[in-house]
Parts: sequence; structure tokens; C-alpha cells
Amino acid sequence: SARSTEDDDDVSEVFLDHRQIGAQQELYMINPLTPGSIFLLPHGTRIYNKLLEFMRAQLKVFRFEEVVSPIIYRKSLWETSGHWEKYKEDMFEVGGRNEETKEEYGLKPMNCPGHCLMYDAAERSYRELPIRYADFSPLHRNEASGALTGLTRVRRFHQDDGHIFCRPDQVQEEIKASIKLVDNVYKIFKIPSYRLLLSTRPEQYIGTIEEWDRAESALREALDESGQQWLVKNGDGAFYGPKIDILVKDSNGKEHQAATIQLDFQLPHRFQLTYRGEDDTLAHRPVMIHRAVFGSVERFMAVIIEQIQGKWPLWLSPRQAIIIPIADRHVDYAREAQEKISGVPSGDRADILDFNISTFYVDIDDRASTLGHRLREAIKKGYNYIGVVGDKEMTDGTVALRPRTGSPLVKKIDDVRQFFIDSVARYE
Amino acid sequence: SARSTEDDDDVSEVFLDHRQIGAQQELYMINPLTPGSIFLLPHGTRIYNKLLEFMRAQLKVFRFEEVVSPIIYRKSLWETSGHWEKYKEDMFEVGGRNEETKEEYGLKPMNCPGHCLMYDAAERSYRELPIRYADFSPLHRNEASGALTGLTRVRRFHQDDGHIFCRPDQVQEEIKASIKLVDNVYKIFKIPSYRLLLSTRPEQYIGTIEEWDRAESALREALDESGQQWLVKNGDGAFYGPKIDILVKDSNGKEHQAATIQLDFQLPHRFQLTYRGEDDTLAHRPVMIHRAVFGSVERFMAVIIEQIQGKWPLWLSPRQAIIIPIADRHVDYAREAQEKISGVPSGDRADILDFNISTFYVDIDDRASTLGHRLREAIKKGYNYIGVVGDKEMTDGTVALRPRTGSPLVKKIDDVRQFFIDSVARYE
Ligand SMILES: [Zn+2]
Ligand SMILES: [Zn+2]
Repeated sequence: SARSTEDDDDVSEVFLDHRQIGAQQELYMINPLTPGSIFLLPHGTRIYNKLLEFMRAQLKVFRFEEVVSPIIYRKSLWETSGHWEKYKEDMFEVGGRNEETKEEYGLKPMNCPGHCLMYDAAERSYRELPIRYADFSPLHRNEASGALTGLTRVRRFHQDDGHIFCRPDQVQEEIKASIKLVDNVYKIFKIPSYRLLLSTRPEQYIGTIEEWDRAESALREALDESGQQWLVKNGDGAFYGPKIDILVKDSNGKEHQAATIQLDFQLPHRFQLTYRGEDDTLAHRPVMIHRAVFGSVERFMAVIIEQIQGKWPLWLSPRQAIIIPIADRHVDYAREAQEKISGVPSGDRADILDFNISTFYVDIDDRASTLGHRLREAIKKGYNYIGVVGDKEMTDGTVALRPRTGSPLVKKIDDVRQFFIDSVARYE
Repeated sequence: SARSTEDDDDVSEVFLDHRQIGAQQELYMINPLTPGSIFLLPHGTRIYNKLLEFMRAQLKVFRFEEVVSPIIYRKSLWETSGHWEKYKEDMFEVGGRNEETKEEYGLKPMNCPGHCLMYDAAERSYRELPIRYADFSPLHRNEASGALTGLTRVRRFHQDDGHIFCRPDQVQEEIKASIKLVDNVYKIFKIPSYRLLLSTRPEQYIGTIEEWDRAESALREALDESGQQWLVKNGDGAFYGPKIDILVKDSNGKEHQAATIQLDFQLPHRFQLTYRGEDDTLAHRPVMIHRAVFGSVERFMAVIIEQIQGKWPLWLSPRQAIIIPIADRHVDYAREAQEKISGVPSGDRADILDFNISTFYVDIDDRASTLGHRLREAIKKGYNYIGVVGDKEMTDGTVALRPRTGSPLVKKIDDVRQFFIDSVARYE
């Protein structure tokens, strides 16, 4: 079995793109009946859900409130937001199939207009700002079919989207916090390096020069305070506001746009959003900040898959461990190990699961083939830990653990579970 | 403040429907720009996410694998499934807005056809069955606008949907497990009583009498084994298979259809699904079981809201606790209590959150109004625990906790947190 590890290492010298790894690990599939819409298969969904769970935890720290907003909206919403006209080619339209009740809807390409409706559903006071909405809704954009590829160019995707509605004097704090969140997250994913790019007022713009100057200087100060390296692209902002793009470099040195932080003077105006100020009037317009840390969750998955070449850290791994009984007489013990380590009861114990219990993805391979064959297959599938159990382990209540990297170790069943819990808590 | 509890109790004698409670607790909103599509507001999303998190835990025990499947599919998929014709009035159609590339899509009203594509993406062996997919995708059904109401009659909703592809000889085990899962879940939600209804072969049916007899007897045996009360509605099955409906009775004695377990001989046939049998041929057709435990998550929320009259148990509550400092000099201590009990760091400690840490929704009310006023407001909002802190608590490192029901108690900050963790683990 030492041989096969070497084989495995040899194979991994070749750079694989996310589509190759995605197929190998059965993470996702695509079907011509819906081009550009990813089917996340069970193992891909495990990763996707973990990414969302991770982000939800961080959003709590940064005081975002998740919402679930609708997916179709009448044409008139998109006319108000400007998407119906400017985003025409990229939008799908929706209608009832009953001619009598037919209405024209747009399938949302972005969450922003829906969030404006939520903001606008109640009178807001300067005291309750900032309001920060997060949303993981599916988005649809009608990309040309020739451009569709893997997880990176798709028609249906999910963002870790967020919108902050704040007072002008809160912009700098919010930008600073957004950069901090990006930095926190990228550290966890060991993203080797990234650059912050500030794009400033273009020739065509809305709003006043004073608004722009104030916003840009807030962004510059937030960038300075971040301690990160940053650059300016003069005149490269959107017509509706300055922005900060975060470019991550993958292990090949290729840059991808992931996070973005974008000021918007326009949507609050188009939706006539206001808040009651200290002067007790509603003559105040909030600033809207669009921001995403992963950006497209699907594209972020692609970047991570390629960066780590499918070698998932334990916490994010869809295949955390597999237990292999050496012979038939070890199968029951292997099942016991599987159940105890995974935290997932089975059989007659398949009762309700405690709410806060940690669970792990632990498989078992008790097929009637040689140990060598099963080991090779488990290695190929990329399990973080392969646990072999035979007579000695059964007697001792242990598992012989073979980590994907590093030296083999023998641990008591309960200690394996605790070791997993501790590793995951540290994002290892 | 004893007065105000009584007031609160008086008010609760009046039965409120979920729309009233939903508005009072700011759980969701509706906007005419998208009739029948619910906007789950922050506090409603907390409940919704908790329900999904809860169900995901149970799905692990019952060996379902979650997937994320696409939302739009070409017309031809819906022709294969039969929905395009039979479900016409209820479906939304989707098209690109670019005339040149326009294609006809349907917005999915159900996940089943997409799951058939996933099943069919690889050759399946009798050994790997049952395959159990779970999916929480948004679904759209074009209900008549006059019928739309609250969370119960909507156009966009989410199911805790699941499809089991199994061999005929596995049907009974799968049905039995499905009933067990329903029972486990309903116990947690203290659903006072429910009835199981078996609907059998109607006059119009597909398949053979033998298939139906075998399936119905498998269902009967599973029902008998469940130990639950069950009834038969002869001839009331769908033309494509027998089913079990679970009717829950709310506190008013009104019955709602929630869970459903439905056998399907038709879709596997329409999609030409096969598996390789022990005889090494592909001449085997899996049975498909559609099942949902919550049913529509939105409707389930409505049932629960009315059943508990908005008095959420701690584990499911969107407002678990609020800390009220008696005077200005107690504000810092109140913040400390909030941070320690919630498990969510803030301010300079706003760093990455450990992955497995338990967090709670703990607010603070440090506004400059009287204690009585703040207490009354907190009671009205339905917090499970109101923690008051003053000089004595500050000195002792405690919080004076006032539960929504029961007697007040004083606890150390850390003990409050541990008490919350323990309560939630027991679904209290
Ligand atoms: Zn946006
Ligand atoms: Zn179905």
C-alpha cells in the first residue's frame, strides 16, 4: 500500500482543472436539458452546504441578517431598477402558461431590487441603520450557450450576496468591516494572495462630485486602515458608484475576481428609499453597498478545487473517513466505529438526532475484495482518513488511521471522533 | 411588570392566525410585485433555516443525500415527465429575452424530473439501491391570484422534498423508515395527533394489478408495523401509484395535509430508468417514492405558528433572549452578557467564528426608556428569556432571567449559556 500512495502522489503532480476533479469526485453534473444550470451531486452539495454554513457563522459576527427573497418579480420592478432595459440580454422572462392570467415576470439575475423592497416595507430611522441583508438565493443570467463552462460560467448560480443600507457617515466603517470579513474568510481558505482594486469616478456618472469625493475618500481610508495592499484604477468605477474588487491569485498565478464591494447611489434613488434623520424628516437617502465575499459560490468552489487540487481539508471534505474491515469477522466492529465516529446513529438506534451534535461523513467498505484493492480505491477517492480494523483493533477498541498525508496512527474510537471535532473547530 | 405578564396572557387567549402572528413578529412580508412569493424577513429566516438544519440532521440518520438541482428545464423535460400537458395551468414558462437565442423552459413545480435525470446520469446496480435524494429547492406553481393567502397558499415555496429510487423488494423497508421519520419529527414538534391515510388503486391506473397488489400490501405491512393508527381510502390513489397521506390536526381540531409518501410506477417508466440486477441485465425498473415530511416548509411554519401561537420553543425561537441593563452604568456589562451568552463575538473580537460553536439570538435593549417600558416591549416581542442586569448582577457576574413562562431565576452568565445549549440539544 506504500506503493499506491506514491502512485497517488505521482498523479497529483499533473494540474487538474475543476471539471476533471469535479467528475472524478462526482461533485456535480450538467445536463443539456438545462444548459448552464449545475446539478450539485451529493458530494458537491456537502461542500456547498458547508460553505454556506461557514459563511452564515461569519455573517453573525458581522451582524448581517439572512433573508429569503422571491425569485420572480413583475416586469415593473425590473423597469424601476433599470435591469429590464440595461440587462435585457442577460435576463430570463417568466410568464404563466394560462393565457388569461398571463403576466410578465423577470427571473432575478440579482437580489438587489428585492432587498430594496424589503428595506422600503417599513419607515426606517437613522437609529436602525445600517440594515444588512444577506441572501443565498439562486440567480439566473442568460449567458451565451457557447460561453458556458464547468462551475465558472453558468446560467444559474448562488452568491453569498449582501446589501448594506447605511447613512453616508457609516460608509467607511462598513467598508472596513467588509474588507475585514473578506480577509478573515480568505485566511481560512489559505488563499495565497489577493489584491484590492479601487475603481473611481468614471466620465459618465450620476450624483454629485461631492458625493463621489466623500465616498471615495471613505473607501481610501478604509483601504488604508485594512493594512492590505491596494491599487487604484482611476475612472473605472460604475456610473452609479465607486467599488473595490478583490482579485485572488490561484496556485497557477491566474487571477480571479471573487469578492466585490460596490457603492451604489442609484438604486436608493430609483426606489426612492429614505430614512428619518435626526432632524425628524424623511429627506434622507441611504447609501446602498453591494458586497459578496465568495462572489458566486459555484465559481468559488471551482477556485478552491483547483487551488487544493481536490485535496479537501477535513472540515470541508465530502469524504472525511472510510472504515475498512480486514475480514468478515471485523464488519460489525467496523460498523460500530463508523457509527461512533460519524455521530450518526443507524439501524434500530436511528432515532432523532440531537440538534447540536457534530457529524462526520464516514463511509464503510465491507465489500468482499482484497484489502489492497479497497485501500487503493479509498486513496483514489481522496478520503482524509482511512481506518483499517482487524483483530488487534477490535481487541483494543482502536482504529488504525491512515491520514491522506502524514504518518499512520492508531487511536481509540472515541479519540478519533474527538480528534475530528477539534480539527474541524480549527478549520483544519 | 407582573401586570404586563397578565396582559400578555389575556391577549394570548384569543386565537391568532399565522398571518397575524407573522406580522406581529415580523416573520415575513408579501409585495404585489410578486404575488404569492414570500419574502422571509430576518426573524422568519431564522426559523426557516433552523427547520432546514433540523431536517438535514434527521436526513443523515435516514441516509438521504441532499442535492441542489436546477430550477429551469427545457420544455422537452416536462413533456417527458407529463407535466407540460397535465400541469399546464400550474406551471410558469421561462424564455430568454434575446429573440435570437430564445428557448422554451419551464420553471419547476416539482423536483422529481430533475432527480430522475440525476439517477439516470450513471448506470445503477441493484447493490447501490436505494438511492435517496433530498432537495430544498424553491418550487413555483401558478396558483390563481384569488386563492393566495399567507404562508399556506403561495406560488413560490420550498419542500423538504425527497425521492427514493429502490427495488420492488425494498419498498416496504423504505415506507417503514419514512413513517418512522415522520413520527420522529412530529414528536419533536409536539404535533398533538395525526392520521395516516392509505389511498389504493383507482379505476384508472397504469401498471399491472400484480404490481399494485404487491405495492399496496407492502404499504399495509409497513403501516401495521408502524404501530400508528391508519385508515384506507379505497380507490383514492393516484393513477401512477398508491400513497400514504399524513393529516395533522391543529389545536383547533382542523386537519392539514403535511407529510406524504407516494409510490410512483410512472416516472421511472417515462424516464426509462433501469438498474443492473443480480442477473446482470439492465431489464430492471426501480420504483420511485416521493416523500416529504414537512411538506411545504412555508405551510408547515404556518401550522406550527398557529399551534404554538407564536410562542416558540427556545431551539426554534428567532428571539431567544434579550438583555436589559437597568441603568447606563450597566450597559457594558449587558454587552458582555450578550456576547458571552450568544457565543457571537463583536467589536474588536469580531474575528472568525469557530465552526462548531453554538450561537444564540441574544438582543440588547439599552435605550434610554424606563425599565418597565422595555420589559413590556420585550414580553410583547415574545423573547424566551429576558435578562435584566443591574448593580447586584454586575457584582455577582449573574443575569436575572425572566422566562416567558415559569418562575424567574438568577444564573451566572456562563451557566445561562450552558443552560441554553442543553435545552436546545433536547429540542426544548
Ligand atoms: Zn446587489
Ligand atoms: Zn416528487
